[in-house]
Amino acid sequence: MASSSSSSSSSGTASPCGACRFLRRKCTHDCIFAPYFGSEQGPAKFAAIHKVFGASNVSKLLLQIPPHDRPEAVTTIAYEAQARIQDPVYGCVAHIFTLQQQVSIHDDTYPTLGLSRIYSTWVRTMCRWHSCKLN
Amino acid sequence: MASSSSSSSSSGTASPCGACRFLRRKCTHDCIFAPYFGSEQGPAKFAAIHKVFGASNVSKLLLQIPPHDRPEAVTTIAYEAQARIQDPVYGCVAHIFTLQQQVSIHDDTYPTLGLSRIYSTWVRTMCRWHSCKLN
Repeated sequence: MASSSSSSSSSGTASPCGACRFLRRKCTHDCIFAPYFGSEQGPAKFAAIHKVFGASNVSKLLLQIPPHDRPEAVTTIAYEAQARIQDPVYGCVAHIFTLQQQVSIHDDTYPTLGLSRIYSTWVRTMCRWHSCKLN
Repeated sequence: MASSSSSSSSSGTASPCGACRFLRRKCTHDCIFAPYFGSEQGPAKFAAIHKVFGASNVSKLLLQIPPHDRPEAVTTIAYEAQARIQDPVYGCVAHIFTLQQQVSIHDDTYPTLGLSRIYSTWVRTMCRWHSCKLN
């Protein structure tokens, strides 16, 4: 999943990775972002992540994750960031609601499969967390 | 959805809201966080949000949202933050995967409902965003 153009920063003197290019900083050989943000398309991808999560927070997050899990983490972080920019109120939680509604429709149609438990469990967890009134 | 104990910061001299208490800063009468983070339980809730998104980013996000939408935004942000702390690699996207799998099982069982289109559309969007190999 790593970008094919991301190794250019390995020397610290070649093109910076997309994240460092966006942040206008020197890209070092051990840049945590370099494997996932290529020099060309990376800045645009990183912009959303930086706006929503902040480069520092994402860097700390990636450092606590084993290297082999980082590509997936970057993918899901990029997805969440993009969703939050497109929908500032609900972000990717809107997708969860949509899927839950679909599952709920299925449950109403085929109640023996019992998938409404997923919906109700999730809503309970969410409400416990913020005393919300979503349901 | 606003916290019942969050109005204490309105004077700027009473108890700070949970966010300002966590950030150890003065809570002003126009604090963007005060309506959603009470003085007692708010700091713990805000800690996760600050760790994942950063107080500054969330403040900017809330300011661009109409006031009547902010409670929902805080709820979904708190949910995303908590999910990311519990699962640093996938965050709340893990819940999306779980729901998609359930929808996919439904589709296999009852293909006429066609819900796999949601799954495939979402995966295509996600992969377009980060050239991933999740599917």
